[in-house]
Amino acid sequence: MSERSAADPFDLPRNAANHVPLSPLSFLARTAAVYPERLAVVHGAHRTTWRETDARCRRMASALAQRGIGRGDVVAVMAPNVPAAFEAHFGVPMTGAVLNALNCRLDAAMIAFILGHSGAKLLFTDREFAAVTGRALDMLPPGERPVVIDIDDALASEGRLLGETDYETFLAGGDPGYAWTLPPDEWDAITLNYTSGTTSDPKGVVYHHRGAYLNALGNVLVWGMTQHPVYLWTLPMFHCNGWCFPWTITALAGTHVCLRRVEAEGILAAMAGQGVTHLCGAPIVMNMLLNAPVGTRPDFGGRRIRMMTAGAPPPAAVIEGMEGLGFDITHVYGLTETYGPATVCAWHDAWNALPATERARLKARQGVAYPVLEGVMVADAQGAPVPDDGATMGEVLLRGNIVMKGYLKNPRATAEAFAGGWFHSGDLGVSHADGYVELKDRAKDIIISGGENISTIEIEGVLYRHPAVLEAAVVARPDAKWGETPCAFVTLKPAAEATAEAIIAFCRDNMAHYKAPRTVVFGPLPKTSTGKVQKFVLRERARTL
Amino acid sequence: MSERSAADPFDLPRNAANHVPLSPLSFLARTAAVYPERLAVVHGAHRTTWRETDARCRRMASALAQRGIGRGDVVAVMAPNVPAAFEAHFGVPMTGAVLNALNCRLDAAMIAFILGHSGAKLLFTDREFAAVTGRALDMLPPGERPVVIDIDDALASEGRLLGETDYETFLAGGDPGYAWTLPPDEWDAITLNYTSGTTSDPKGVVYHHRGAYLNALGNVLVWGMTQHPVYLWTLPMFHCNGWCFPWTITALAGTHVCLRRVEAEGILAAMAGQGVTHLCGAPIVMNMLLNAPVGTRPDFGGRRIRMMTAGAPPPAAVIEGMEGLGFDITHVYGLTETYGPATVCAWHDAWNALPATERARLKARQGVAYPVLEGVMVADAQGAPVPDDGATMGEVLLRGNIVMKGYLKNPRATAEAFAGGWFHSGDLGVSHADGYVELKDRAKDIIISGGENISTIEIEGVLYRHPAVLEAAVVARPDAKWGETPCAFVTLKPAAEATAEAIIAFCRDNMAHYKAPRTVVFGPLPKTSTGKVQKFVLRERARTL
Repeated sequence: MSERSAADPFDLPRNAANHVPLSPLSFLARTAAVYPERLAVVHGAHRTTWRETDARCRRMASALAQRGIGRGDVVAVMAPNVPAAFEAHFGVPMTGAVLNALNCRLDAAMIAFILGHSGAKLLFTDREFAAVTGRALDMLPPGERPVVIDIDDALASEGRLLGETDYETFLAGGDPGYAWTLPPDEWDAITLNYTSGTTSDPKGVVYHHRGAYLNALGNVLVWGMTQHPVYLWTLPMFHCNGWCFPWTITALAGTHVCLRRVEAEGILAAMAGQGVTHLCGAPIVMNMLLNAPVGTRPDFGGRRIRMMTAGAPPPAAVIEGMEGLGFDITHVYGLTETYGPATVCAWHDAWNALPATERARLKARQGVAYPVLEGVMVADAQGAPVPDDGATMGEVLLRGNIVMKGYLKNPRATAEAFAGGWFHSGDLGVSHADGYVELKDRAKDIIISGGENISTIEIEGVLYRHPAVLEAAVVARPDAKWGETPCAFVTLKPAAEATAEAIIAFCRDNMAHYKAPRTVVFGPLPKTSTGKVQKFVLRERARTL
Repeated sequence: MSERSAADPFDLPRNAANHVPLSPLSFLARTAAVYPERLAVVHGAHRTTWRETDARCRRMASALAQRGIGRGDVVAVMAPNVPAAFEAHFGVPMTGAVLNALNCRLDAAMIAFILGHSGAKLLFTDREFAAVTGRALDMLPPGERPVVIDIDDALASEGRLLGETDYETFLAGGDPGYAWTLPPDEWDAITLNYTSGTTSDPKGVVYHHRGAYLNALGNVLVWGMTQHPVYLWTLPMFHCNGWCFPWTITALAGTHVCLRRVEAEGILAAMAGQGVTHLCGAPIVMNMLLNAPVGTRPDFGGRRIRMMTAGAPPPAAVIEGMEGLGFDITHVYGLTETYGPATVCAWHDAWNALPATERARLKARQGVAYPVLEGVMVADAQGAPVPDDGATMGEVLLRGNIVMKGYLKNPRATAEAFAGGWFHSGDLGVSHADGYVELKDRAKDIIISGGENISTIEIEGVLYRHPAVLEAAVVARPDAKWGETPCAFVTLKPAAEATAEAIIAFCRDNMAHYKAPRTVVFGPLPKTSTGKVQKFVLRERARTL
């Protein structure tokens, strides 16, 4: 390749006319200018247009700036999917500050840890979570407590006010014409999302404006989204910033339909009443809809609703059931560290001709890189790709512009995560002949029985096909002879019956015998706020059985 | 705003895992990996899948590298919309080189000027243009002549071979597995496009990988494109790199349907035979379809074809006619300096209820910024925005990531174009109450008659509504009393009749009398290769009437 001379004629500089930092804030500016009268946000009786929503976000930014909030400061939000949480995705970064959406199912000690670690200067907190928030604030040294603003949502069922003012009063003090500016650098932090920290202190994952902009567009590309979607907020905004959908839906001048609680009744009512076109959620949400009483199930009159799912590989039976109900399911995969979804099970038209079970099996794979991710690889311990044989397990590595900036104040974890120039997901998977990745387990979840690796996900996939099973999760149980054996925790459908023996026999009929669970325990499954089964709880139970 | 401390905890560095240069080359890599068997390129009997297309592009890059082509070198292409021209959009930048797609309607002197100015090291030239290319090469000093490779297209009707080998032989010498790399910097040049240079030497507009990536996605967003479009190549790829559609359609794993000539017969055959879903073109292409003999007009059986148009404000009557024929028209606007389209007449659902003429009038406006552009403004001489009154004229200024890197070896023109931190389009327009921009004229086309500004575009819009008029263009004619008066050049429809007096009377009935043309001249209009009327030719004619 020829060397470039010092006087390279193509080396033309950047200037204000031809280079602007990429930021999802630009999406709001454009949508408010082009579609000012379209409906932007719905929350019960609260309905705001894009003009009004833009003004509310500017008011927030202005009011924050009045409090001295600026570049690099952290503003936390403790709330379910209410308008304030959405508006914070624009109002906070408009000041150059960093949004930290707190998981509002966390306990006071964890909230206190996060507020202390991030050094949040201001906290918006929903009335319903006043008790937890209050206890968390009490745990912080007085000098480290953030300014507290209450979100006094009319739809909140309970809770007291504990801040110095409420959100609407706070907004009223801001300037609706506040002239915010883009960050000086698209690499600037835009949000901070803490990992769930089931086994250690949570880590603060830093997103930047560039990545948020790109993954917002990545969602458009993989989902084939067009203008004006009506998006139902089943996925918590505190989970990877709602997989970047606050920004995606805004870029498309769509409508955000807020939802305080993920319950079948409210979801079905929103779908019927608001003309919902798209939603996201863990497989638990699909289960909820599938198992809603028959009379309350949605009838969309032939209209298909598009649902994106991730968080756990959806069992084939669940995908199949949902498609029968009128939902087109897109399966994506990602982590907090990848702005939410970073791979997609990209569909092939030819697969439509396959039997439903085969289609669902293909769709349960995590797939290929988002167009805005550069690479996904299943790697062996040396970092080399495993063969595309659908069998050799390795760790899933990812790289590209939608990989986090790093962990806040945690250089060791950051360096480990980025070892070798790839992000290490900690998930184990295989690569199929067509290059599609399929997860087999979290590294820490895999069962090693008699020297054989057993995928808990594979066993769960079989369990979900049993007609009496509503939910299932499999973990390792210590075993003197085998080292570990699979232990299944199962919730049965209402009024359904099955014995442990029958379930084990069903598994042995449908998979290699050594992989079938040796133990079956019935009862409800412990879950995180995002519907992920808490396997560390189950592992503890299995240990003491 | 608070100052950032030196030890800003959010200041986490870029690394190979979380930062990758934005480049449309990544789209080909992904599409070839995910959809290897889908049809990528069609050209007569030539049909290649994405796997094959990817291999052909790598072969091109490898063969170029073997010739010493590398970063910052220029590779020129003189061809209509054939597979080689498309493949060059990937194969050339895969080596780090810069693609210069030549307008193959230019004459030998202009081609020689451009080859000399760009310093092209290698030229792919289609057999049909051998005569012009040969003469151009003869004009260059022997030491400055590029290596010449012939594109010996089976569908070319004429022409000899004049290079050292032909394109397919050249590819055969390349490695289909060539391991290309992304550019070290997304700001690196990817292509070079010369302006038409009607009044002076053409200027070389430099595009970079970042802008090409972003405008490729901008097209997806404004056109609501989903996976697998079938795109008909009516728009020349040598015009702003086909408005970035070589990259857009590739990102969406669509099919590129090549077309050597923009003629109604070939267009209609492709639409019927290839299942075309999208095409782009100047209003001249719409006129061609509208005026095709009735028996040959497309019948898509209710299917709508989407057409994007720009290059000249489409007359309302033409938009209306096309919509009646089964085309959904999206109107965009841009310049060579903005990677093709940079604004779009973003549609509002509410406008669908308006009468057809009113819809077409709204759609003839150039509209609002692309989502990937940051701003468009109609500015007065001081650079301040004119009022949104739909009447006050100003220059259209643009800024954002899809504004060119600059002009090659032309610092003075570059500085002038970017004066004040905005790109100066040289187009005159107004801003309407809804913020939509509407062009009124090129700065040099506006007619000043008795001290009043008269928009030639407005007069042309009225002329197109006359039932006998096929095409119309208006220029200024020098006048002793008024300074200038409008002079209309008109082509009538086949078998239609109208007198100059009748046309003038029609104009006076439909617009302010002082704006109506004083002179009407009948006959064919001189045009550029992209269908733009050459007004400088007409101005010369008007001067000597």
